[in-house]
Amino acid sequence: MSSRAFASDNQAGVHPTVMNRMALAAEGFASAYGNDALTRQVEAQLSERFETDCSVFLVGTGTAANALALSALCPPHGAVLCHREAHIVNDECTAPEFFTGGARQVSVPGEWGKPDLAGLEYRMEQLTFRGVHSVKPSVLSLSNATEMGTIYGPGELARYGSFCRRHGLALHVDGARFANALASQAMSAAELSWKQGVDVLTLGATKGGAMAAEAVIFFNRDLAEDFGFKRKRGGHLWSKHRLLAAQFEGWLSDGLWLELARQANQLARNLADGLAEVPGISISIPVEANMVFPILPAAMAAALRDEGFEFYDWPTQPGMVRLVTSFATEEASVEDLIARARHHAE
Amino acid sequence: MSSRAFASDNQAGVHPTVMNRMALAAEGFASAYGNDALTRQVEAQLSERFETDCSVFLVGTGTAANALALSALCPPHGAVLCHREAHIVNDECTAPEFFTGGARQVSVPGEWGKPDLAGLEYRMEQLTFRGVHSVKPSVLSLSNATEMGTIYGPGELARYGSFCRRHGLALHVDGARFANALASQAMSAAELSWKQGVDVLTLGATKGGAMAAEAVIFFNRDLAEDFGFKRKRGGHLWSKHRLLAAQFEGWLSDGLWLELARQANQLARNLADGLAEVPGISISIPVEANMVFPILPAAMAAALRDEGFEFYDWPTQPGMVRLVTSFATEEASVEDLIARARHHAE
Amino acid sequence: MSSRAFASDNQAGVHPTVMNRMALAAEGFASAYGNDALTRQVEAQLSERFETDCSVFLVGTGTAANALALSALCPPHGAVLCHREAHIVNDECTAPEFFTGGARQVSVPGEWGKPDLAGLEYRMEQLTFRGVHSVKPSVLSLSNATEMGTIYGPGELARYGSFCRRHGLALHVDGARFANALASQAMSAAELSWKQGVDVLTLGATKGGAMAAEAVIFFNRDLAEDFGFKRKRGGHLWSKHRLLAAQFEGWLSDGLWLELARQANQLARNLADGLAEVPGISISIPVEANMVFPILPAAMAAALRDEGFEFYDWPTQPGMVRLVTSFATEEASVEDLIARARHHAE
Amino acid sequence: MSSRAFASDNQAGVHPTVMNRMALAAEGFASAYGNDALTRQVEAQLSERFETDCSVFLVGTGTAANALALSALCPPHGAVLCHREAHIVNDECTAPEFFTGGARQVSVPGEWGKPDLAGLEYRMEQLTFRGVHSVKPSVLSLSNATEMGTIYGPGELARYGSFCRRHGLALHVDGARFANALASQAMSAAELSWKQGVDVLTLGATKGGAMAAEAVIFFNRDLAEDFGFKRKRGGHLWSKHRLLAAQFEGWLSDGLWLELARQANQLARNLADGLAEVPGISISIPVEANMVFPILPAAMAAALRDEGFEFYDWPTQPGMVRLVTSFATEEASVEDLIARARHHAE
Repeated sequence: MSSRAFASDNQAGVHPTVMNRMALAAEGFASAYGNDALTRQVEAQLSERFETDCSVFLVGTGTAANALALSALCPPHGAVLCHREAHIVNDECTAPEFFTGGARQVSVPGEWGKPDLAGLEYRMEQLTFRGVHSVKPSVLSLSNATEMGTIYGPGELARYGSFCRRHGLALHVDGARFANALASQAMSAAELSWKQGVDVLTLGATKGGAMAAEAVIFFNRDLAEDFGFKRKRGGHLWSKHRLLAAQFEGWLSDGLWLELARQANQLARNLADGLAEVPGISISIPVEANMVFPILPAAMAAALRDEGFEFYDWPTQPGMVRLVTSFATEEASVEDLIARARHHAE
Repeated sequence: MSSRAFASDNQAGVHPTVMNRMALAAEGFASAYGNDALTRQVEAQLSERFETDCSVFLVGTGTAANALALSALCPPHGAVLCHREAHIVNDECTAPEFFTGGARQVSVPGEWGKPDLAGLEYRMEQLTFRGVHSVKPSVLSLSNATEMGTIYGPGELARYGSFCRRHGLALHVDGARFANALASQAMSAAELSWKQGVDVLTLGATKGGAMAAEAVIFFNRDLAEDFGFKRKRGGHLWSKHRLLAAQFEGWLSDGLWLELARQANQLARNLADGLAEVPGISISIPVEANMVFPILPAAMAAALRDEGFEFYDWPTQPGMVRLVTSFATEEASVEDLIARARHHAE
Repeated sequence: MSSRAFASDNQAGVHPTVMNRMALAAEGFASAYGNDALTRQVEAQLSERFETDCSVFLVGTGTAANALALSALCPPHGAVLCHREAHIVNDECTAPEFFTGGARQVSVPGEWGKPDLAGLEYRMEQLTFRGVHSVKPSVLSLSNATEMGTIYGPGELARYGSFCRRHGLALHVDGARFANALASQAMSAAELSWKQGVDVLTLGATKGGAMAAEAVIFFNRDLAEDFGFKRKRGGHLWSKHRLLAAQFEGWLSDGLWLELARQANQLARNLADGLAEVPGISISIPVEANMVFPILPAAMAAALRDEGFEFYDWPTQPGMVRLVTSFATEEASVEDLIARARHHAE
Repeated sequence: MSSRAFASDNQAGVHPTVMNRMALAAEGFASAYGNDALTRQVEAQLSERFETDCSVFLVGTGTAANALALSALCPPHGAVLCHREAHIVNDECTAPEFFTGGARQVSVPGEWGKPDLAGLEYRMEQLTFRGVHSVKPSVLSLSNATEMGTIYGPGELARYGSFCRRHGLALHVDGARFANALASQAMSAAELSWKQGVDVLTLGATKGGAMAAEAVIFFNRDLAEDFGFKRKRGGHLWSKHRLLAAQFEGWLSDGLWLELARQANQLARNLADGLAEVPGISISIPVEANMVFPILPAAMAAALRDEGFEFYDWPTQPGMVRLVTSFATEEASVEDLIARARHHAE
């Protein structure tokens, strides 16, 4: 039986190509702490993929990547603006507070996981009005793809970029699923990042097929000053760093990262299409990456879980659940889920 | 030609057995964040190896393991006592300060990497005399093996344990090379840890053959309360946690960890014996683990480096260098180094 | 002309009795850092006023008192629950985050400055559901009097106390205007604090007639362990501590604190009564302490300001302003304001 | 009987002139949080006294002033270089670590309370050699007068200033007794500060006759950016700020600060001269400010304490004690101490 794990792309393992590169890198000897050829190669790969000289720092987890990135952009008396359902607010304990030295996250609502621009303007006013008695807004953090599986296109991103410039904010993008966002649009990585004013991108490979590998990419290289110290004091500088680099090297080579993302996106698309035809199921949130948020009848959700399907309830709306596909999801799994849902609908 | 890398056990890669377990774990699907069977298995393995129920938390780097462990033992207004050349003081940026929220490291000198007990007593007096104007001594942190490649036996450890109890300090052991310390003594892991009063051990697998895997082991389980939160907010909870567990599982199974450590220790022994007979070289620090600290004539050191040998100068004494062996070091490499040293001595 | 300062009770100066006690304390010599007789006396006074042995720590500002108190109750991975308009959220920069080492404030709405109990229950569920991925709820912080000039009576307070016990939360009360809350009810200080489950009260004297004097009062004395260190490392231990104590001694003696509060409350009452009769003004928030929140016609507000009246716009409702009376406010000032408002209404 | 308090200048109270200014400022109403005329006046006074436009921030304690100043100069991964007996290392708990977010203090020895320049050079080398594995040296902090009652003249200060420029360090001076240092030299405040490269001076008025008043003075005004936020989040922004300003206004007016310092210095001089002639007493540390460090026979020290004299043992040398004079010390007290010492010597 194919897998019934739809709870998260974290349930997947490691793509064989990535694993092979790690096995190769595991042999012999090399300088520790990132002073090795493989790390240099990944830095070059990323500068090439993004068509600009950028400063790259690799770490092992997405929480570290995000929190460290924010610590480079936000002082301890600052505020990070973000969407109310952002991962940095809801899923990373107090890591952002910890790494920034006590900055505050100020969240605003907005449709489909995207912070409302008028809401952001209003918050800016509120925060700056009280001066030192309040906090100093310093960063806007977006997720692309968002927590709701939607994506920002370049035009939309540019509007946030312009908002940031107008208010003197840095623009951070949490790209735990950046490959998914990019794969679903016909454009370059540059157009979806620095060309729209993104200062720092945390590019996640873990969810996309690596084991534990995330890159903090500074397009604004001045902001990277002393970042090496920050990474080290956070305990995020791997000694056998080449094994971190090997994951990226394998993932980025020959377009694998986009191929795997496209494949996961397509399966989410299929899943949504199939479920949409099942009586009793409704899907109101656009499926643009590798996540589907259907509203299921309670009995159906229970029945599916009884059969071993794994997925989370999602608090956005009553009855909403989240289904996630990944590079490791098989077509048969998707068909299986649709068939079982149809069965329980009858 | 065999490798000439003697700078650190971090220059080695990953042992094939560990790599194979990772490749196996990389397949299929599993619950994320440590809620998987492999993680449970490693917890059981460690409780068995240490002959006691302990609380185990896995992380990817030694700096994280140490700093997180200290954060469980020391308040922000506290002090961590340690040796002047301890890794936590000299090699981990301000990670201990960061994770403890601003505690201070207070170091004392002592022969062969071990803090002098009389010096510790004197420091305790100094610190407590000034009350709230000074810091509150809270932890003693030892390294076993030490930074100088020496080891603590149970009797010696017990004296530090008793010092800690007398002063109300917690006892932490940085065990980045604990396997090396244990392998060179005929005794159980329990006798070298909690039986002598160790509260928390950070057990390193990375240097010993894993890729990026360290365990924070709480023998005093009360101290582990909320440690899961601490790990998460430090960005050190891996999503694909089973890949972290797989490393430990492979390393601990069939006594591999001790076998590899014994082998590295033996090569260090051989290296020391060989070098000791080379005219002009003197070795005054006991070789008890996998490190040798010979004093080399300057010309010899330079000549060896010209030939590609890698090693660090060590500040303890003029002319002193550090040579490290690892699970990956070949006998031929050791013979090669001895032969070249002899050649340059002539 | 009498003063037209209604912006804050912070605009007032120091009551002559308090000033006299300071002048007396300023003479001669005494031990520094709180090891003096006057400090002992204030500790005794507070234990007597609150009818229980409590641990008392004096500091110079309300922000320090609140943030330090929270740091004794909430770990860095914890959450402080409070009302959406709480002072600790809106007016103290990131002091709570700073002193707790990065804890998060989670606020809920609620009428008249009081957090809605159902809202609190819902938040508890949300936060605990995600385990280490979220934050650990640790404290509920109330203000009495609230930011909206309303007060909690003992029965109401007891309901929050019971909520806290049920969820394992500590209960903190920001008592910057505790004297005002107490003065408007016929009851003991004990009934309005520890008898309802309050663990820590920050009792403000500054707004009530002192210069710069706040007391952190631990009814749960276990929580005060190491608080002396926390105060010192925050830079809040005065060297000439007797001058801090002198303020409290004067303020607490002969019931002055309550007398001054009652007087300010009465003037607020008078002000509200007078304004309520002015056509075009409406007052919907109960006036229970020393603050009035009328809704003024825009033209009237502007005209009053033109004449030198000082007061803040309040964001709760369009047209709402805040008027604050203090121990130093004269009856003539209140009459003056009412008269001018009436004039502008015609 | 005149006072026998020689333990610290903190044992003194408040000078009558300062107290009077506070009493005046305590009347009426004024804007809170430093937006008042008296605060503006003190800023102007300090710019005039130091003959340069500087950014001034007032706080209530010396620990706050120092720790906040360091937080503006040193990142969390940085190091503050200072003398081994500096107040920031020995007497302020972990305040410097707290406010800097976890930076480290690295201390060097040196005669008479002044860090040895060669020692500083050596430390710089050690710290920078290990890159991100160590800390980033960011500040040199001196005390003038030093903890040993000695002073830096402009030439000496300039040598430290040049050391700082060469290494890219900021130069901070802890001026808890700056008035004493200045009063004993015939020169301007400018020559003893920014003209020698001092970036930030914490100027203490508390020990010199005020109640609780310290100024953080930025000569390098760029470093003051966001300092208002830092002060607020540390809980060090007084609401009735004019009472903080009033202390400085009184202390700085008509040269009172220097007059009081000169007087305390002279009494220390007299005390040293008198004691030096007492058989059995030796004084090896120059008496340049308001502190004397005689070595007393143990029996004499005990006898003096029995008679009510208060003073601290000083750990620098066996038998050494510290005697401090202040603006409040009377000539009769000094004569009394000398006479009793002479009596016990016989």
